[in-house]
Amino acid sequence: MIVWNGEGDKPERLAETVFWVPQVEDSTNLAAKFQAMPKLEVTQLTSAGVEDILEFVPNGVTLCTARGVHGSAVAELVMTVILATLRRLPHFVEAQRQGNWEPLEADDLRDKRVLIIGAGDLGEQTARRLRSFDADPVLVAHTARDGIHATSELPSLLPEADVVVLTVPLTPDTTNLVDAEFLGRMPDGAVLVNVARGKVVDTAALLAELTTGRLRAALDVMEPEPLPAGHPLWKAPNLIITPHAAGSISQAGARAFALVNAQVRRYLAGEDLVNVVKGAY
Amino acid sequence: MIVWNGEGDKPERLAETVFWVPQVEDSTNLAAKFQAMPKLEVTQLTSAGVEDILEFVPNGVTLCTARGVHGSAVAELVMTVILATLRRLPHFVEAQRQGNWEPLEADDLRDKRVLIIGAGDLGEQTARRLRSFDADPVLVAHTARDGIHATSELPSLLPEADVVVLTVPLTPDTTNLVDAEFLGRMPDGAVLVNVARGKVVDTAALLAELTTGRLRAALDVMEPEPLPAGHPLWKAPNLIITPHAAGSISQAGARAFALVNAQVRRYLAGEDLVNVVKGAY
Ligand SMILES: NC(=O)c1ccc[n+]([C@@H]2O[C@H](COP(=O)([O-])OP(=O)(O)OC[C@H]3O[C@@H](n4cnc5c(N)ncnc54)[C@H](OP(=O)(O)O)[C@@H]3O)[C@@H](O)[C@H]2O)c1
Ligand SMILES: NC(=O)c1ccc[n+]([C@@H]2O[C@H](COP(=O)([O-])OP(=O)(O)OC[C@H]3O[C@@H](n4cnc5c(N)ncnc54)[C@H](OP(=O)(O)O)[C@@H]3O)[C@@H](O)[C@H]2O)c1
Repeated sequence: MIVWNGEGDKPERLAETVFWVPQVEDSTNLAAKFQAMPKLEVTQLTSAGVEDILEFVPNGVTLCTARGVHGSAVAELVMTVILATLRRLPHFVEAQRQGNWEPLEADDLRDKRVLIIGAGDLGEQTARRLRSFDADPVLVAHTARDGIHATSELPSLLPEADVVVLTVPLTPDTTNLVDAEFLGRMPDGAVLVNVARGKVVDTAALLAELTTGRLRAALDVMEPEPLPAGHPLWKAPNLIITPHAAGSISQAGARAFALVNAQVRRYLAGEDLVNVVKGAY
Repeated sequence: MIVWNGEGDKPERLAETVFWVPQVEDSTNLAAKFQAMPKLEVTQLTSAGVEDILEFVPNGVTLCTARGVHGSAVAELVMTVILATLRRLPHFVEAQRQGNWEPLEADDLRDKRVLIIGAGDLGEQTARRLRSFDADPVLVAHTARDGIHATSELPSLLPEADVVVLTVPLTPDTTNLVDAEFLGRMPDGAVLVNVARGKVVDTAALLAELTTGRLRAALDVMEPEPLPAGHPLWKAPNLIITPHAAGSISQAGARAFALVNAQVRRYLAGEDLVNVVKGAY
């Protein structure tokens, strides 16, 4: 077995590769890359989303995500922007920049109803943090189960939500899930938080609701991304934009490496892999 | 009994007042006010700090605070500014103001050691929220007890702290508790959060550590307050200033009223009052 530790030249022995950990620079020409690795058994991602790679993974190859590795960082960012929005932190940051003492009365998170759409790792980790604030998280997933609502219940859940958090994968079902109708069901002053993928939200519909001042939002992901200079979202009121920063923390590499390490050990020991999205392991 | 509900003119029957809920405008001439109320039995505050009133409360008069009412709002603000500092939210707010997509790698809260000085309502509520982030809160109080360290242990605790949160009352012991020596024991890059009272921190000593870029801070209370225009703290790097905003939330009045209501009922029923700081009840 050849293990490449990321230093020096990458080994060219693709033909013998059985366990692949794609790097950022591997994201193009995926079909050709998979074809060059006929012995491949496992593809282990270091991120959570599979929408760009899934269709290229050959039958018989197991695909694993980094589910759980980035969840805490993303849930933290969700909490950061919810708290910053309710407690009016951008107002205080701007007053400080201008050197002005400008008190105001803000909202708080306690007792707020937070609808979390996507009850996976990100959704559950966010819910756990919200409960410690005595807020009221309500989880929604593809299929209903104990304590988790189904997407079909959204029309009746949205009007009761103070905050709506998007933590779904990007799929045909979730593309433009948040359109003008969805937003229209959210009550005045409610906050939309997107840490899923930009295409889950209809940008123009959101922009319209922000511009009238009816809704508030925090976007870590958006369409298009990076947001180009001059895009109207930059100047929209009651919006916090973070540049796909939810997972960009100094510990991310070390935590992803720990997962890869554990998965390689499991593979070599013939044990079951975790975080399997596709395949027989 | 006369109960004034806050509407119309205040009753002038001070001589007969037995239960007093001082309002903000009552904070001056306290000695004279207490003298005008010879039958007073209970003074019920709608805030948590007693440093401005304690010395004026006559013997035999019970003094109660609003402990528990504002704790969740203050703990929320502590979490807001810790997360904003670690996750670099002020950088993103400024990039957004300029219309620039500027990703960077931030810190995260998971696994961080957070030293909380003051293990009362604020301290405990902050610790509970921190645990949900898998951070490691360490509580310090006046006297050591189960799971809580004594102030005498600070010299060995400070060098291990990633974040230090001040949630002590202002007393002779805590005045200038955070001086150059205290700050000097904090490790490089550590974050000081003050939601207690401005005089707990030596402003000049903190300013020196911020100016060199060695420490980071978030101040909700500061000395002097309001911070005057042109004060050097306004331009200090790695600092978040909020204008004594921890308790300024739209729900604060309703929550304080609920406490006053419950205390008046207890008083009339001859039951024990809660939150007694001084007195025989
Ligand atoms: N902003 C960032 O930097 C960042 C970082 C990491 C991840 N992400 C994004 O977040 C997504 C979720 O991550 P995760 O680790 O939490 O994934 P996960 O554990 O696989 O959970 C996904 C959840 O979404 C639900 N879901 C799927 N389709 C749905 C639909 N049509 N309607 C409602 N719910 C639906 C699933 O429902 P069931 O439980 O019923 O199957 C599941 O509960 C990732 O796919 C990625 O795109 C973003
Ligand atoms: N920023 C704001 O808007 C805001 C809002 C509310 C309150 N506050 C401030 O926060 C303070 C604390 O509020 P709280 O409700 O948490 O009070 P609390 O429940 O009475 O708790 C005070 C804690 O501080 C500890 N303490 C007292 N003197 C100390 C010392 N010299 N060294 C170390 N610890 C000491 C006490 O220790 P023991 O347990 O050993 O007695 C206790 O654990 C208030 O007095 C007020 O000044 C600020």
